Amino acid sequence: MNPDEIMEHAIALALKNIQTNSGGPFAAVVVKDGEIIAEGANHVTTQHDPTAHAEVVAIRNACKKLGTFQLDGCEIYTTCEPCPMCMGAIYWARPEMVYYACDQKDAAGAGFDDQFIYDEIAVPYENRKIPFKKLHQQKAQMIFAKWLEIEDKVRY
Amino acid sequence: MNPDEIMEHAIALALKNIQTNSGGPFAAVVVKDGEIIAEGANHVTTQHDPTAHAEVVAIRNACKKLGTFQLDGCEIYTTCEPCPMCMGAIYWARPEMVYYACDQKDAAGAGFDDQFIYDEIAVPYENRKIPFKKLHQQKAQMIFAKWLEIEDKVRY
Repeated sequence: MNPDEIMEHAIALALKNIQTNSGGPFAAVVVKDGEIIAEGANHVTTQHDPTAHAEVVAIRNACKKLGTFQLDGCEIYTTCEPCPMCMGAIYWARPEMVYYACDQKDAAGAGFDDQFIYDEIAVPYENRKIPFKKLHQQKAQMIFAKWLEIEDKVRY
Repeated sequence: MNPDEIMEHAIALALKNIQTNSGGPFAAVVVKDGEIIAEGANHVTTQHDPTAHAEVVAIRNACKKLGTFQLDGCEIYTTCEPCPMCMGAIYWARPEMVYYACDQKDAAGAGFDDQFIYDEIAVPYENRKIPFKKLHQQKAQMIFAKWLEIEDKVRY
Protein backbone atom coordinates (compact mmCIF):
# COMPACT_ATOMS: atom_id res chain seq x y z
CA MET A 1 0.00 0.00 0.00
CA ASN A 2 1.22 3.52 -0.72
CA PRO A 3 0.96 6.42 1.77
CA ASP A 4 -2.24 7.76 0.16
CA GLU A 5 -3.98 4.40 0.43
CA ILE A 6 -2.82 3.89 4.00
CA MET A 7 -4.07 7.30 5.14
CA GLU A 8 -7.38 6.70 3.37
CA HIS A 9 -7.67 3.45 5.30
CA ALA A 10 -7.05 5.31 8.58
CA ILE A 11 -9.68 7.90 7.67
CA ALA A 12 -12.19 5.11 6.94
CA LEU A 13 -11.41 3.57 10.35
CA ALA A 14 -12.06 6.90 12.11
CA LEU A 15 -15.37 7.29 10.30
CA LYS A 16 -16.41 3.76 11.22
CA ASN A 17 -15.46 4.50 14.85
CA ILE A 18 -17.99 7.32 15.15
CA GLN A 19 -20.64 5.57 13.05
CA THR A 20 -20.51 2.62 15.49
CA ASN A 21 -20.46 4.89 18.59
CA SER A 22 -17.12 3.38 19.61
CA GLY A 23 -15.42 6.62 20.62
CA GLY A 24 -13.98 9.86 19.24
CA PRO A 25 -13.30 10.71 15.58
CA PHE A 26 -9.72 9.46 15.43
CA ALA A 27 -7.86 6.44 14.06
CA ALA A 28 -4.24 5.44 13.48
CA VAL A 29 -2.35 2.58 11.88
CA VAL A 30 1.20 1.27 12.20
CA VAL A 31 2.99 0.25 9.00
CA LYS A 32 6.08 -1.90 8.54
CA ASP A 33 7.60 -2.73 5.13
CA GLY A 34 4.58 -1.17 3.41
CA GLU A 35 2.05 -3.34 5.23
CA ILE A 36 -0.36 -2.33 8.00
CA ILE A 37 0.61 -4.38 11.05
CA ALA A 38 -1.74 -2.79 13.61
CA GLU A 39 -4.70 -0.44 13.85
CA GLY A 40 -6.19 1.69 16.59
CA ALA A 41 -9.20 3.92 17.07
CA ASN A 42 -10.25 6.17 19.92
CA HIS A 43 -12.07 4.23 22.66
CA VAL A 44 -11.86 6.72 25.56
CA THR A 45 -15.54 6.84 26.41
CA THR A 46 -16.52 3.27 25.60
CA GLN A 47 -13.58 1.58 27.34
CA HIS A 48 -13.44 4.03 30.27
CA ASP A 49 -9.82 4.81 29.47
CA PRO A 50 -8.67 8.41 28.94
CA THR A 51 -5.42 7.07 27.46
CA ALA A 52 -7.20 5.05 24.74
CA HIS A 53 -6.42 7.52 21.96
CA ALA A 54 -6.00 6.13 18.45
CA GLU A 55 -2.19 6.39 18.38
CA VAL A 56 -1.76 4.85 21.86
CA VAL A 57 -4.08 1.96 20.95
CA ALA A 58 -2.30 1.40 17.61
CA ILE A 59 1.16 1.53 19.24
CA ARG A 60 0.11 -0.91 21.95
CA ASN A 61 -1.38 -3.29 19.37
CA ALA A 62 1.71 -3.08 17.15
CA CYS A 63 4.12 -3.72 20.04
CA LYS A 64 2.02 -6.66 21.21
CA LYS A 65 2.16 -8.14 17.71
CA LEU A 66 5.91 -7.55 17.32
CA GLY A 67 6.68 -8.69 20.89
CA THR A 68 8.77 -5.61 21.58
CA PHE A 69 8.49 -2.17 23.15
CA GLN A 70 10.00 -0.32 20.18
CA LEU A 71 8.63 0.32 16.69
CA ASP A 72 11.95 0.18 14.83
CA GLY A 73 11.48 0.57 11.09
CA CYS A 74 7.78 1.40 11.43
CA GLU A 75 5.69 4.36 10.32
CA ILE A 76 2.60 5.68 12.07
CA TYR A 77 -0.32 7.14 10.12
CA THR A 78 -2.84 9.10 12.17
CA THR A 79 -5.95 11.00 11.12
CA CYS A 80 -5.00 13.92 13.38
CA GLU A 81 -1.83 15.57 14.65
CA PRO A 82 -0.96 13.73 17.88
CA CYS A 83 -1.92 15.37 21.18
CA PRO A 84 0.92 15.71 23.75
CA MET A 85 0.09 12.29 25.23
CA CYS A 86 0.25 10.59 21.85
CA MET A 87 3.29 12.63 20.83
CA GLY A 88 5.06 11.35 23.93
CA ALA A 89 3.91 7.79 23.21
CA ILE A 90 5.32 8.07 19.68
CA TYR A 91 8.68 9.33 20.95
CA TRP A 92 8.89 6.45 23.44
CA ALA A 93 7.96 3.93 20.69
CA ARG A 94 10.53 5.47 18.31
CA PRO A 95 9.03 4.81 14.84
CA GLU A 96 10.86 6.02 11.72
CA MET A 97 8.29 8.68 10.87
CA VAL A 98 4.72 9.90 11.30
CA TYR A 99 2.08 10.95 8.76
CA TYR A 100 -0.84 13.00 10.07
CA ALA A 101 -3.93 14.45 8.37
CA CYS A 102 -5.84 17.01 10.47
CA ASP A 103 -3.97 19.35 12.80
CA GLN A 104 -4.51 20.46 16.42
CA LYS A 105 -6.52 23.51 15.25
CA ASP A 106 -8.94 21.23 13.41
CA ALA A 107 -9.23 19.16 16.63
CA ALA A 108 -9.87 22.28 18.73
CA GLY A 109 -12.59 23.28 16.26
CA ALA A 110 -14.28 19.95 16.92
CA GLY A 111 -14.16 20.53 20.69
CA PHE A 112 -11.02 18.63 21.71
CA ASP A 113 -8.37 19.76 24.22
CA ASP A 114 -5.23 18.96 22.17
CA GLN A 115 -4.27 22.59 21.65
CA PHE A 116 -5.14 23.53 25.25
CA ILE A 117 -2.81 20.80 26.58
CA TYR A 118 0.01 21.91 24.26
CA ASP A 119 -0.48 25.44 25.58
CA GLU A 120 -0.47 24.23 29.20
CA ILE A 121 2.85 22.38 28.79
CA ALA A 122 4.51 25.73 28.09
CA VAL A 123 3.05 27.27 31.29
CA PRO A 124 5.02 27.13 34.61
CA TYR A 125 3.54 24.64 37.08
CA GLU A 126 2.38 27.39 39.45
CA ASN A 127 0.09 28.80 36.77
CA ARG A 128 -1.30 25.55 35.38
CA LYS A 129 -5.00 24.69 35.38
CA ILE A 130 -4.14 21.42 37.19
CA PRO A 131 -1.87 22.30 40.17
CA PHE A 132 1.44 20.42 40.49
CA LYS A 133 3.31 20.23 43.78
CA LYS A 134 6.80 18.82 44.45
CA LEU A 135 7.04 16.44 47.42
CA HIS A 136 9.91 14.28 48.76
CA GLN A 137 12.28 14.82 45.82
CA GLN A 138 15.35 13.78 47.81
CA LYS A 139 13.79 10.56 49.08
CA ALA A 140 12.75 9.60 45.57
CA GLN A 141 16.11 10.37 43.96
CA MET A 142 17.37 7.28 45.77
CA ILE A 143 15.26 5.15 43.38
CA PHE A 144 17.24 6.44 40.41
CA ALA A 145 20.51 5.82 42.27
CA LYS A 146 19.46 2.21 42.80
CA TRP A 147 18.38 1.91 39.16
CA LEU A 148 21.81 3.08 37.99
CA GLU A 149 23.44 0.40 40.16
CA ILE A 150 21.62 -2.46 38.37
CA GLU A 151 24.01 -3.91 35.79
CA ASP A 152 21.73 -6.12 33.70
CA LYS A 153 18.74 -3.75 33.51
CA VAL A 154 16.69 -3.44 30.32
CA ARG A 155 16.83 0.18 29.16
CA TYR A 156 14.11 1.77 27.07
CA MET B 1 -3.35 8.69 54.69
CA ASN B 2 -1.64 12.06 54.48
CA PRO B 3 0.37 13.28 51.44
CA ASP B 4 3.71 12.27 53.01
CA GLU B 5 2.55 8.72 53.65
CA ILE B 6 1.06 8.41 50.19
CA MET B 7 4.23 9.57 48.45
CA GLU B 8 6.29 7.22 50.61
CA HIS B 9 4.00 4.40 49.49
CA ALA B 10 4.58 5.37 45.85
CA ILE B 11 8.35 5.45 46.39
CA ALA B 12 8.21 1.99 47.96
CA LEU B 13 6.27 0.73 44.92
CA ALA B 14 8.90 2.12 42.53
CA LEU B 15 11.68 0.45 44.50
CA LYS B 16 9.83 -2.86 44.49
CA ASN B 17 9.34 -2.50 40.72
CA ILE B 18 13.07 -2.44 40.04
CA GLN B 19 13.90 -5.02 42.71
CA THR B 20 11.52 -7.46 40.98
CA ASN B 21 12.78 -6.59 37.45
CA SER B 22 9.27 -5.49 36.51
CA GLY B 23 10.27 -2.33 34.64
CA GLY B 24 11.68 1.16 35.12
CA PRO B 25 12.12 3.05 38.43
CA PHE B 26 8.74 4.75 38.50
CA ALA B 27 5.43 4.34 40.34
CA ALA B 28 2.24 6.33 40.79
CA VAL B 29 -0.96 6.12 42.79
CA VAL B 30 -4.41 7.65 42.43
CA VAL B 31 -6.08 8.94 45.59
CA LYS B 32 -9.72 9.77 46.22
CA ASP B 33 -11.05 11.04 49.57
CA GLY B 34 -7.66 10.36 51.19
CA GLU B 35 -7.58 6.70 50.13
CA ILE B 36 -5.44 5.07 47.46
CA ILE B 37 -7.85 3.69 44.87
CA ALA B 38 -5.33 2.53 42.26
CA GLU B 39 -1.62 1.97 41.77
CA GLY B 40 0.68 1.75 38.78
CA ALA B 41 4.33 1.03 38.11
CA ASN B 42 6.38 1.17 34.93
CA HIS B 43 6.02 -2.02 32.87
CA VAL B 44 7.37 -0.86 29.49
CA THR B 45 9.97 -3.56 28.99
CA THR B 46 8.21 -6.48 30.65
CA GLN B 47 4.79 -5.91 29.06
CA HIS B 48 6.17 -4.83 25.65
CA ASP B 49 4.23 -1.58 25.92
CA PRO B 50 6.01 1.78 25.52
CA THR B 51 2.91 3.48 26.96
CA ALA B 52 2.99 1.49 30.22
CA HIS B 53 4.45 4.32 32.29
CA ALA B 54 3.49 4.46 35.97
CA GLU B 55 1.00 7.34 35.61
CA VAL B 56 -0.70 5.82 32.54
CA VAL B 57 -1.02 2.45 34.29
CA ALA B 58 -2.36 4.07 37.48
CA ILE B 59 -4.86 6.23 35.55
CA ARG B 60 -6.11 3.24 33.55
CA ASN B 61 -6.48 1.17 36.73
CA ALA B 62 -8.28 3.99 38.55
CA CYS B 63 -10.70 4.61 35.67
CA LYS B 64 -11.42 0.88 35.38
CA LYS B 65 -12.21 0.79 39.09
CA LEU B 66 -14.40 3.90 38.99
CA GLY B 67 -16.10 2.87 35.73
CA THR B 68 -15.47 6.25 34.15
CA PHE B 69 -12.98 8.03 31.89
CA GLN B 70 -12.47 10.99 34.23
CA LEU B 71 -10.71 11.25 37.60
CA ASP B 72 -12.99 13.90 39.11
CA GLY B 73 -12.01 14.68 42.70
CA CYS B 74 -8.86 12.55 42.53
CA GLU B 75 -5.20 13.33 43.15
CA ILE B 76 -2.27 11.64 41.44
CA TYR B 77 0.99 11.00 43.28
CA THR B 78 3.96 10.08 41.09
CA THR B 79 7.59 9.42 41.99
CA CYS B 80 8.76 11.55 39.07
CA GLU B 81 7.59 14.60 37.18
CA PRO B 82 5.38 13.25 34.37
CA CYS B 83 6.89 12.95 30.88
CA PRO B 84 4.90 14.61 28.05
CA MET B 85 2.94 11.39 27.44
CA CYS B 86 1.93 11.11 31.10
CA MET B 87 1.32 14.85 31.34
CA GLY B 88 -1.11 14.53 28.46
CA ALA B 89 -2.76 11.49 30.05
CA ILE B 90 -3.21 13.47 33.27
CA TYR B 91 -4.81 16.40 31.46
CA TRP B 92 -7.20 14.04 29.65
CA ALA B 93 -8.07 12.32 32.97
CA ARG B 94 -8.58 15.69 34.70
CA PRO B 95 -7.66 14.96 38.35
CA GLU B 96 -7.80 17.76 40.94
CA MET B 97 -4.04 17.95 41.41
CA VAL B 98 -0.71 16.15 41.07
CA TYR B 99 2.13 15.57 43.54
CA TYR B 100 5.51 14.58 42.07
CA ALA B 101 8.86 13.78 43.71
CA CYS B 102 11.82 13.70 41.28
CA ASP B 103 11.91 16.06 38.31
CA GLN B 104 12.74 15.62 34.61
CA LYS B 105 16.39 16.52 35.25
CA ASP B 106 16.66 13.69 37.77
CA ALA B 107 15.12 11.37 35.15
CA ALA B 108 17.57 12.55 32.48
CA GLY B 109 20.42 11.86 34.91
CA ALA B 110 19.18 8.29 35.18
CA GLY B 111 19.17 7.90 31.37
CA PHE B 112 15.54 8.62 30.50
CA ASP B 113 14.24 10.69 27.56
CA ASP B 114 11.66 12.81 29.43
CA GLN B 115 13.59 16.07 29.04
CA PHE B 116 14.54 15.28 25.42
CA ILE B 117 10.85 14.78 24.52
CA TYR B 118 9.86 18.03 26.26
CA ASP B 119 12.57 19.79 24.23
CA GLU B 120 11.36 18.16 20.99
CA ILE B 121 7.78 19.35 21.50
CA ALA B 122 9.03 22.94 21.27
CA VAL B 123 10.84 22.23 17.97
CA PRO B 124 9.05 22.79 14.60
CA TYR B 125 8.10 19.51 12.87
CA GLU B 126 10.63 20.03 10.06
CA ASN B 127 13.49 19.96 12.57
CA ARG B 128 12.31 17.08 14.78
CA LYS B 129 14.29 13.90 15.30
CA ILE B 130 11.21 11.91 14.19
CA PRO B 131 9.96 13.42 10.89
CA PHE B 132 6.27 14.40 10.70
CA LYS B 133 4.52 14.86 7.36
CA LYS B 134 1.01 16.22 6.71
CA LEU B 135 -1.12 14.13 4.34
CA HIS B 136 -4.79 14.42 3.24
CA GLN B 137 -5.79 17.08 5.77
CA GLN B 138 -8.88 18.11 3.78
CA LYS B 139 -10.17 14.55 3.42
CA ALA B 140 -9.78 13.95 7.15
CA GLN B 141 -11.45 17.22 8.19
CA MET B 142 -14.69 15.61 7.01
CA ILE B 143 -14.47 13.22 10.02
CA PHE B 144 -14.68 16.16 12.43
CA ALA B 145 -17.59 17.63 10.46
CA LYS B 146 -19.46 14.34 10.83
CA TRP B 147 -18.55 14.19 14.55
CA LEU B 148 -20.04 17.65 15.11
CA GLU B 149 -23.27 16.51 13.44
CA ILE B 150 -23.85 13.71 15.98
CA GLU B 151 -26.31 14.99 18.56
CA ASP B 152 -26.06 12.37 21.30
CA LYS B 153 -22.27 11.90 21.26
CA VAL B 154 -20.31 11.35 24.46
CA ARG B 155 -17.75 14.15 24.77
CA TYR B 156 -14.46 13.79 26.67
